[in-house]
Amino acid sequence: MQEFISKHITSHFPKMDTEVPLDALDDSAVVDDVVFTIDGHTVNPLFFPGGDIGKIAVSGTVNDISVMGAKPIGIASSVVLEEGLDADIVDRVMKSMGDTAAYAGVPIVTGDTKVMGAGELDKMVVSTAAIGKRPDYLDHDMEVANSYRKVDSRWCSDSNTRPGDVIIVSGYMGDHGIALLSFREGYGFDSVIESDVQPLNKMIEKGLRVGGIVAMKDPTRGGLANTLNEWAGKSKCQLDIDEECIPLRDGVVSACELLGIEPLNIGNEGKCVISVVPEMAEEVLKAIRSTPEGKDAAIIGKASEGPGRVVLRTEIGGRRILEPPSGDPVPRIC
Amino acid sequence: MQEFISKHITSHFPKMDTEVPLDALDDSAVVDDVVFTIDGHTVNPLFFPGGDIGKIAVSGTVNDISVMGAKPIGIASSVVLEEGLDADIVDRVMKSMGDTAAYAGVPIVTGDTKVMGAGELDKMVVSTAAIGKRPDYLDHDMEVANSYRKVDSRWCSDSNTRPGDVIIVSGYMGDHGIALLSFREGYGFDSVIESDVQPLNKMIEKGLRVGGIVAMKDPTRGGLANTLNEWAGKSKCQLDIDEECIPLRDGVVSACELLGIEPLNIGNEGKCVISVVPEMAEEVLKAIRSTPEGKDAAIIGKASEGPGRVVLRTEIGGRRILEPPSGDPVPRIC
Repeated sequence: MQEFISKHITSHFPKMDTEVPLDALDDSAVVDDVVFTIDGHTVNPLFFPGGDIGKIAVSGTVNDISVMGAKPIGIASSVVLEEGLDADIVDRVMKSMGDTAAYAGVPIVTGDTKVMGAGELDKMVVSTAAIGKRPDYLDHDMEVANSYRKVDSRWCSDSNTRPGDVIIVSGYMGDHGIALLSFREGYGFDSVIESDVQPLNKMIEKGLRVGGIVAMKDPTRGGLANTLNEWAGKSKCQLDIDEECIPLRDGVVSACELLGIEPLNIGNEGKCVISVVPEMAEEVLKAIRSTPEGKDAAIIGKASEGPGRVVLRTEIGGRRILEPPSGDPVPRIC
Repeated sequence: MQEFISKHITSHFPKMDTEVPLDALDDSAVVDDVVFTIDGHTVNPLFFPGGDIGKIAVSGTVNDISVMGAKPIGIASSVVLEEGLDADIVDRVMKSMGDTAAYAGVPIVTGDTKVMGAGELDKMVVSTAAIGKRPDYLDHDMEVANSYRKVDSRWCSDSNTRPGDVIIVSGYMGDHGIALLSFREGYGFDSVIESDVQPLNKMIEKGLRVGGIVAMKDPTRGGLANTLNEWAGKSKCQLDIDEECIPLRDGVVSACELLGIEPLNIGNEGKCVISVVPEMAEEVLKAIRSTPEGKDAAIIGKASEGPGRVVLRTEIGGRRILEPPSGDPVPRIC
């Protein structure tokens, strides 16, 4: 997929000189101090335990803005509907978008609606874009980090991690993908796993107000394995992760064993990975844990000198390289 | 459609206090001096005389930002593809997006790609968002306008027109819709009508640098009839339009006669309607005409005291009310 995108999509777009450009493939772009992101949503089914396409659409863009360290200030929504789609379904999705936006405190400021014929589109596609501005608390966060060592980008960019930095995850991994998969395929596991989809802007603001965070990312497509490998590559350092420290629900672990899926490759929609200078790690963790979205946060490892790779220390004391996932184990989960 | 949108979509979104909010249903929203817009594109077929879905997607959002008086500074693209869609088709559309963005001088800064199964989506949907900032030349434009009379909004909003203002269109009306319709349905009219799809930001900047423009809008869905009626309603004045002054190609007129369609109800993708204080009308017209995009621009009427309606003076000296179109005469044209 990444190869298809670079070959057939981004290669045709003119190269431009912006602070965080398209090439950086970060969560959002930064143009003239405006942070800007877009995502298309095709999740199937539209409603699932813990959420729906509307909650994903709003949370996803709010989170993409927030993990740059920015404050989201507006959402735009483009909805494409299948002709004749039940108005009740539209109502439920739009109410969920509105409720999620209200919870996040970010207004939906503009939108567009189109209709495609029955047979041309399965139910609906929702694309959401969001914009954000640089808040005072990001300046504060970076000042704290810079008081310990120089940080390259003034945004929480993927390339900012350095040896010594501590890696935090904000909660359980894999819930969203497994919730979708088990609901969709009707596996009927004993315990219903609910999606974690939620906006993280308030939790992130709390962390930044403590200070010392240098990078953040929401581990969506490709899960934690993908996020950590992207960071290791872009930051040119090794990430040493303790497998037993990664929060994983028993239900997710057993579902993954049954299905032969690596839980760290599974997408999340309401979680965040945080890289923080070591001196501030415990305080940031405490702040994140004080929020409902981050109550299960944990330190999972740290960065070290080494090639851009991820080394997993397994529970029995072994070590293995955690490779980025080669394909999407669960398609159409967002 | 408008009724469906207000009942089932926007009614669920929380009301927020922004300078140009969702309720204003203007071309773009304005949040904290960032102008922001989004549009979904489902045009069928993907390629047509004069353009393609990629050119529409970039031009449409660039124009929505520009008609607010803002300078577009970045585009975001969300592409949803049918699984197995020919990579050549993707290449052609993305190259067209890149070329159009380069022509407009506005970078595509961020994007997202999703895939839906064959049978779940017909070929592709492209949603584009854009952001813009307030340029110096808009301040200049508004200063000039305010030197003649008070202008309500500091952006080129739909509600700014007042009695006496002169109405300009930037060129021929109806080309895009008729190009699509005749190509799609294979009517085989003698002359091929080409779509007018094009970015208008450079033409609009020229007009604003002259000064005195108070409102602009691109007459897309619902055509000129819809745009003028929206203006008349939101500005609470009457618009007196000379039918014979509206630029219409012979091919468009004869196609419309044959098909029983009102040409003023047909969507355009590279045209702009401009409302300007009377003292500056001729100078603005001259500036618009000096650009390739506006060479066929014409003054078509003026605003007067009266109810929010559009009165068309016909060529034989009669008068009729130009109603807003009740439905879309040509669906899936953008």
